[in-house]
Amino acid sequence: MDFAPPPKTLELVARYRAFVDEELLKLEPLVLAKPFGSCLPVLNQARTQAKVRGLWAPQIPQEHGGLGLSLVELAFVGEALGGCPLGHWAVNFQPPDAGNLELLHLFGSADQKERFLKPVVDGAARSCFAMTEPDRPGSNPTWLETTARKEGSQWVINGHKWFTSGADGAAYAIVMASTNDEGKPHERASMILVPMSTPGVSLVRNLPVMGEAGSDWASHSEVTFVDVKVPLSHLLGQEGHGFTLAQERLGPGRIHHCMRWLGICQRAFELMMKRAVDRPVAPFRALGQQQMVQRYVAESAIQIEAARWLVLKTAWVIDTQGQKAARDDIAMIKVLVARTLQDVLDRAIQVHGGLGLLDDLPLAWFFRHERAARIYDGPDEVHLASLAKRLLGARGLAR
Amino acid sequence: MDFAPPPKTLELVARYRAFVDEELLKLEPLVLAKPFGSCLPVLNQARTQAKVRGLWAPQIPQEHGGLGLSLVELAFVGEALGGCPLGHWAVNFQPPDAGNLELLHLFGSADQKERFLKPVVDGAARSCFAMTEPDRPGSNPTWLETTARKEGSQWVINGHKWFTSGADGAAYAIVMASTNDEGKPHERASMILVPMSTPGVSLVRNLPVMGEAGSDWASHSEVTFVDVKVPLSHLLGQEGHGFTLAQERLGPGRIHHCMRWLGICQRAFELMMKRAVDRPVAPFRALGQQQMVQRYVAESAIQIEAARWLVLKTAWVIDTQGQKAARDDIAMIKVLVARTLQDVLDRAIQVHGGLGLLDDLPLAWFFRHERAARIYDGPDEVHLASLAKRLLGARGLAR
Amino acid sequence: MDFAPPPKTLELVARYRAFVDEELLKLEPLVLAKPFGSCLPVLNQARTQAKVRGLWAPQIPQEHGGLGLSLVELAFVGEALGGCPLGHWAVNFQPPDAGNLELLHLFGSADQKERFLKPVVDGAARSCFAMTEPDRPGSNPTWLETTARKEGSQWVINGHKWFTSGADGAAYAIVMASTNDEGKPHERASMILVPMSTPGVSLVRNLPVMGEAGSDWASHSEVTFVDVKVPLSHLLGQEGHGFTLAQERLGPGRIHHCMRWLGICQRAFELMMKRAVDRPVAPFRALGQQQMVQRYVAESAIQIEAARWLVLKTAWVIDTQGQKAARDDIAMIKVLVARTLQDVLDRAIQVHGGLGLLDDLPLAWFFRHERAARIYDGPDEVHLASLAKRLLGARGLAR
Amino acid sequence: MDFAPPPKTLELVARYRAFVDEELLKLEPLVLAKPFGSCLPVLNQARTQAKVRGLWAPQIPQEHGGLGLSLVELAFVGEALGGCPLGHWAVNFQPPDAGNLELLHLFGSADQKERFLKPVVDGAARSCFAMTEPDRPGSNPTWLETTARKEGSQWVINGHKWFTSGADGAAYAIVMASTNDEGKPHERASMILVPMSTPGVSLVRNLPVMGEAGSDWASHSEVTFVDVKVPLSHLLGQEGHGFTLAQERLGPGRIHHCMRWLGICQRAFELMMKRAVDRPVAPFRALGQQQMVQRYVAESAIQIEAARWLVLKTAWVIDTQGQKAARDDIAMIKVLVARTLQDVLDRAIQVHGGLGLLDDLPLAWFFRHERAARIYDGPDEVHLASLAKRLLGARGLAR
Repeated sequence: MDFAPPPKTLELVARYRAFVDEELLKLEPLVLAKPFGSCLPVLNQARTQAKVRGLWAPQIPQEHGGLGLSLVELAFVGEALGGCPLGHWAVNFQPPDAGNLELLHLFGSADQKERFLKPVVDGAARSCFAMTEPDRPGSNPTWLETTARKEGSQWVINGHKWFTSGADGAAYAIVMASTNDEGKPHERASMILVPMSTPGVSLVRNLPVMGEAGSDWASHSEVTFVDVKVPLSHLLGQEGHGFTLAQERLGPGRIHHCMRWLGICQRAFELMMKRAVDRPVAPFRALGQQQMVQRYVAESAIQIEAARWLVLKTAWVIDTQGQKAARDDIAMIKVLVARTLQDVLDRAIQVHGGLGLLDDLPLAWFFRHERAARIYDGPDEVHLASLAKRLLGARGLAR
Repeated sequence: MDFAPPPKTLELVARYRAFVDEELLKLEPLVLAKPFGSCLPVLNQARTQAKVRGLWAPQIPQEHGGLGLSLVELAFVGEALGGCPLGHWAVNFQPPDAGNLELLHLFGSADQKERFLKPVVDGAARSCFAMTEPDRPGSNPTWLETTARKEGSQWVINGHKWFTSGADGAAYAIVMASTNDEGKPHERASMILVPMSTPGVSLVRNLPVMGEAGSDWASHSEVTFVDVKVPLSHLLGQEGHGFTLAQERLGPGRIHHCMRWLGICQRAFELMMKRAVDRPVAPFRALGQQQMVQRYVAESAIQIEAARWLVLKTAWVIDTQGQKAARDDIAMIKVLVARTLQDVLDRAIQVHGGLGLLDDLPLAWFFRHERAARIYDGPDEVHLASLAKRLLGARGLAR
Repeated sequence: MDFAPPPKTLELVARYRAFVDEELLKLEPLVLAKPFGSCLPVLNQARTQAKVRGLWAPQIPQEHGGLGLSLVELAFVGEALGGCPLGHWAVNFQPPDAGNLELLHLFGSADQKERFLKPVVDGAARSCFAMTEPDRPGSNPTWLETTARKEGSQWVINGHKWFTSGADGAAYAIVMASTNDEGKPHERASMILVPMSTPGVSLVRNLPVMGEAGSDWASHSEVTFVDVKVPLSHLLGQEGHGFTLAQERLGPGRIHHCMRWLGICQRAFELMMKRAVDRPVAPFRALGQQQMVQRYVAESAIQIEAARWLVLKTAWVIDTQGQKAARDDIAMIKVLVARTLQDVLDRAIQVHGGLGLLDDLPLAWFFRHERAARIYDGPDEVHLASLAKRLLGARGLAR
Repeated sequence: MDFAPPPKTLELVARYRAFVDEELLKLEPLVLAKPFGSCLPVLNQARTQAKVRGLWAPQIPQEHGGLGLSLVELAFVGEALGGCPLGHWAVNFQPPDAGNLELLHLFGSADQKERFLKPVVDGAARSCFAMTEPDRPGSNPTWLETTARKEGSQWVINGHKWFTSGADGAAYAIVMASTNDEGKPHERASMILVPMSTPGVSLVRNLPVMGEAGSDWASHSEVTFVDVKVPLSHLLGQEGHGFTLAQERLGPGRIHHCMRWLGICQRAFELMMKRAVDRPVAPFRALGQQQMVQRYVAESAIQIEAARWLVLKTAWVIDTQGQKAARDDIAMIKVLVARTLQDVLDRAIQVHGGLGLLDDLPLAWFFRHERAARIYDGPDEVHLASLAKRLLGARGLAR
C-alpha cells in the first residue's frame, strides 16, 4: 500500500493551484456579485489561460484533446479547483458538460462525436442534460413523463424538465425520455441529443435557486419540449439504454462532485482558520483561542480528512477495478462528502459571524448553492437506502 | 398550573391567522421574487388592512396606540405571523422597530416620544438600530469603535456600522457609541438618536446577504458616521447606559425572534407534511410512506413542540417576574429555537427535493435569511458560554 | 396560562426531596455495589420511613391507600425521586408494580383487588408483567407466541417471556397471552393473573443486563410457562382486551418513566456541574472554565429544561383531557426524554473522566441500565414512525 | 498511490481471522459471563494455539521473538483481532503490555530487557502502567502528585494511582512519577520499573467499571505506593524524560486502540446486519426492510469505512515518516474512531432491541467497556483542542 501521491501528480496539482491563485481568485468577486453571463468576456480570459498553461480538459481522453488524467489524479485536481466557484468551469471540467462528454466519448457515434463532443471539448459550445422533471421524483429515473416517439425518420419529443443546469446558452441538451412506457422499468428510457434551437424547445425560466436565477452556465432551467423533432440518428447509445447510460454517467459524475466539494470544504476550512487567527474577540484575545472555535476547527479537520481519503480510495477502485466495483463506495462518498460540505460551511459561517452571511466571501455563496449537494445526483436518503439494501441483500435480505 | 391559553388569546390568534391567510399569503410570492422596496405600494395595503382589522402594533402599550398584549399573548401572535415573511412587518411588530419603540417607550423623553416614537407607531416612518460594527466583535458590545464626543451642545459621532437592518429608508437610527473609552466596560457606551438625513451619515451599501442586497425594510446596511452632529438632547436614556439599554432591548427582542422562528418552523413543517402526503415516489406510493421521511416529520414535530413550550414558559416568566428572572431561559430559547429552525428548514427542503431549493416556496428564502438566526442578537456560542458560566458561577466557579 | 406549580405541590416535592436526601442517598452506594436482594433488610427501612413521612404510594388513589396525586403532581414527585435508583421503589411508585396496580385498579374485579392489588399497595408483595417475548418483536404486541387456552374452568398457559422485570421474588405475574390466534390483530390477546408459585412457571434466569443479572426487584427475568393452569377468574378485564389494556397501562407508564428520567438527568447534571467546579485541570484552573465543558453544561441545561416542560404539559393534558388526547405528546416525550437522558449522562461521564466510568457514582449505573430507555415501552423508531403516520394521516396520507 | 493491501498481508490477516473464528469465538461467552481470572486455565490454551499458529506477538520486533509487523500490517491484524474481547490478549498484543514492551524495547537497558521485557514477550508474565492519578487530571500528565525521590542508591516512591489496567496479577508496573517538581513542566516526570511485589505497593481494589470490577488482565486497579524502594537502575530511559516516553508510548498505543476499535465496529456492524436480516417484525417482514434500520446500517457502513482508511493512512505515515509526522493524524483518528465505535455500538444495540442489552452478545460488553474509549489516552476534548491549536498555531495564532 502506498498513500503518497506520485510526484507527477503533485507537480500537476501545484500548477492547478497556481492557476487558481493567480488567475481565478481575482475574478471570484465578480462571479459572487454579478450574473455569470454578464461576466463572460472577462471570465473567458481565464479559460484562455487554462489552455495556455496546459490545464485544459483534464478529464478528457488525450485523443479528444484533453489531458486524460486518471480518477485519482482528477481527485487532486478537482479539489484544487473546487475551492473557487470558477475552478472547474475555467478548465472545462464543469458539470454537466463533463458528464455529457463522457457519454459521448463512450457511446456517441462518429458523427455525434464530431458534431456534439468536439465543440464542447474545445470550449466553443456548452451542453446540458435534461433528465429531472418537476412532476416526477428525481430519485426514480425509471418513471418519466417525457416521451419520445418515433414518427418516420424522427423522434418526436414531448415533456417538461427542470434543473436542466446550464441550459441557458447551451448548444444542445441530452434529453432523457421514455421511448417505451410498457417496457421493463429499467429499459423504458432512452437518451436523445436535441439542439436547443430545435423548434418546440422552450426555456421557460432560469429557476430562482436560493435567491439567484443565475445565467448562462451558472443557472438551472425549466425547459419544455412540445412536439420537438430530431432525426432518429440523434439517439445516443441504444434505444432503451437510457437508464444504463444515466448510471454510467452519474457514477463518475458523483465522484467529480465529491472531489469538487472537498475543494470547497478545504477553502471554507482555510477561511475559518484565518478568521479564527485574525479576529479579536477582545483586546489581545483571538477568536481561535476560544475552545468552542477550536472544536469547530478540529471537527472540520477530521471530517475533511476522513472524507478525502475515502474519495481517493474510491477513485482508485474505479481506476483499477471499474465503476461497478465502486458502487458502494460511490454511495458512501456521495452522502459523506455532501454532509461534510454542509457541516464545514456552516461552521465557517458561524466563525465569521455576520461577515459569513455576506456574498463578500464565497462561504455564503457555497452555502446557498451547495445545499443542493444533498439532493442532486440522488438525495442522501436514496443512497443510504440502496446502500443498505445491497449490504443486507448480500447477507440474505429479501428485496 | 394551566397550560391552556385563555379563550381571548385563542380568539385573537385566530384573527391574526385569518389575516395572514386572507391578506398576506397572496402577497408572499411578490416578496420572494422582487425587491421589497419595489413592492411597497401593494404591500402597504396589507398594513392598512391590519389597522382595519384591529391587529396593528400588538406589542405597543395601549396608551401609545397599540394593543398592549402580554408576552404570552405575543408568543401566540408572533408564531401566527412568523410563518409569512411579511407577517410582523404588516402589523408593525417587525424588528428593529419593535425593539426601538420599546426603548423609546421606556427611556425616551416626552419630546423624543413625540418626535421618534409616534411616527413609527403610526407606521408613517421606520427606524433602525446601529450597534454592530465590522471591525469589532458583535459578541462584545462593551468594545466599540464608534465614538460620540460632546462638543458644546452637540454630540459629534464618528464610526462605522453594519448589519444596520432597515437603514435603507429609515427616518432615524439609534446609534450605540462609546461616550467614555476610559469608563468601566459596561458603562462606556450610550445610545443617541440620529436622523438618517443628518450630514455625515452615509449609507454605504445594502449588504449582499445570501444572494440578496434587499431594499427598504428588508435590508441590512453598512453605514458610516463622519463628524455627525446631533443635539445633546438626542441622548436616549442616561449617558453611559448604552449597554444596559441594549440588554433591556435585546431580552424581549430575542424572545420576539424566537416566537417568529416558531412560526417559520410551523410553516416549514406544514409544507414538509403536505409534500410528504402529495408527492408520489412511485405510482401509488407517497413520499410520506417512506420511514426516513416519517422520521424527519416526527423529529421535527418533537423539536418544535419542545421549543414552543419553553418559549411560552419564558414569556410567562417575563410577564410575571420580569426580564431578569428569565435571563437563563432567554439564553436557552435563543439557542434552542434558532437550532430548531435550521433543522426543520433543512428537513423541509430535503423532503421537497429540488423544489425546496427554489424561491418558489418560502423554504429557501427562510433557509438563506435565517441562517443568521444563530448569529444575530448573540451567537450560539456566546449564549452557551454565558449560560454555563452563570450556572457554574452559582455553584462556586470562579469567573 | 400559569406555569407556576401550586404551593401545595412545591411543599410536597420538598418533602420528597428531603426524603431522598436524608434517607436514600446514604443507601445508594449499597445498591450500586451489591445485589439488590442482599440489601433488602436495610433498604426496607427506607420504605418504612416513606410510610412514616406520608409519602407512600403517591400514584395510588386514596381509596386504595395512596396519595392519589394528579399526573402533574406526580411529574414533580417523579423527578424528585428519579435521581436516586432507589427513589421510586422506596415509596412504592416503581415499575412494573405501578402499572400493574393501575390495571388492577381500573379493570380488576373486587376479588382480584383484594388478592392482587392490596398486598402490593401495602408493600407486602411485588408483581411483574410478562409481555415481551424473546422470539417475537416487542414492538408488535399483536403478534405473540404465548397462548392461553380454556380447558374447563381453567386457563392453560404456554409460552416463553423475557424482560419480565422484577419477576425474581414477585408474588404474581400479569401474563399477556393470545387467547384467540384467529381474531383481529388487536383482539387476540388477553391478560391473566398468574401466581409465580403456580406449577409450570419457571424463572429460567435473571437476564445479564449490561454486566449485572441483578436480583429481586432490580432484575429482568426470562420466564417460561409450561401448561400453567389458573382459574378462569384470573382473567383481568375482558377476553381479547389484552392489547387495549396494554395501551392503557403503557400510556401513564411511559410518562412515569419520563418523569423519572428527568430526575436522572437533573442528578447527572448536578454532578457534572459539581465536577466542573471542583476539579482542577491545572493549578487554579477548574474544568468548568474550559469552554468545551461549558458547552456541555449549557447544552444539557437546554435539553433538560425543554424536555421537562413538554413532560409537564403532557401530564397536564392527560389530567385534563385524558390519555387519548395526549397520544402524540406521549410519543414525543418518550423519544425526547430518553434521548436527553442518554445525552446528559454521556456528557456527565465525559466531564468526570475515568471517575465517570466507575460504579462509585450513579452515572455509570444509570448509563448502563438506562440505555434500555430508548428500547423499552416502544423503541424510538416505533414511536417516531407511528407519530409521523398519525400526523400525516390527519393530512390525508394513506396508511 | 496504491490502496491494495499486499497479498502477504491478506494471507496473514486471513490466518488471524481463522484463529479468531476457530479458537476464540467459542471462548467468548466465558469471558462475557465470568471473571477473567477464573477462566485463565481455559483461555491460556488459546495463547498456546496462537504460538503454534505463528501468530504470537505480531507487534514485537523479530529479534525479541515477535513477528515484527509494520503498523499498516498491524492495522489489518488489529481489526481482525479486535472484534473479539480476547483477540489481542490471545496473541500477546494487548494493552498495556504492548505499550510497555515498546518502551522497554526502545529505552530499556540490556538488564531491563532481560528481566522485564523477555518474560512478557514470552507470555510468562504481565505488566502494567501506572500513570493516571485520582486527584490529578489525566489530561495533564505534567502535573503529577506521585513522587520518586533519590535516597542513596534507591528511588523512594510515594503516590496514588488508578486505572492501572491489568495491575491485578502483573509482575511489575512502569510508574510515572515526578522526580523534580521544580523542573520545566515537561521535564518533571520519570518512568521507573517497580515490581508489584515490592513492599509498599498495595492494590487497593479493582475498580468497579460499568458493573464489573474484573480480574487479572481484564481489570483496572487503584494502587498506592508508600515509601516504595527500588534501585536507581530501575529508571527507564533518562531522568526527566517521563513525559517524552509517555508520548512515545501513547502515539502507537492510540493507533493500536483505533485498529482494535475498528474490529469492534465491524463485529457490531455484522451483528446488526445479521439481526436486520433474521429478525421478523411481522410475518414475512424483516427488520432490515424498515428504512430506519437501513439508515442505521448505511450510516454505520460509511462511518466505519471512512474511519478505516484514515487509520490505514495514519499507520502508513508512521511507517514511512515516523510518529511525529503523524501527530495530527493520530489526534484525528483517536477522536474519530472512538466516536464511530460508540455510534455503531449504539445502533447495533438499538437494532437488537432487548437482546442488545444482554451480555449474551458482546455488544453490551463493548458498549460498557468502551465508553472509556473517548476518555483514556486523552479525552476527545484534549485531542480536539490540541489539534486545533497546532493547526491554528501554524497559521499564526498565539498560544
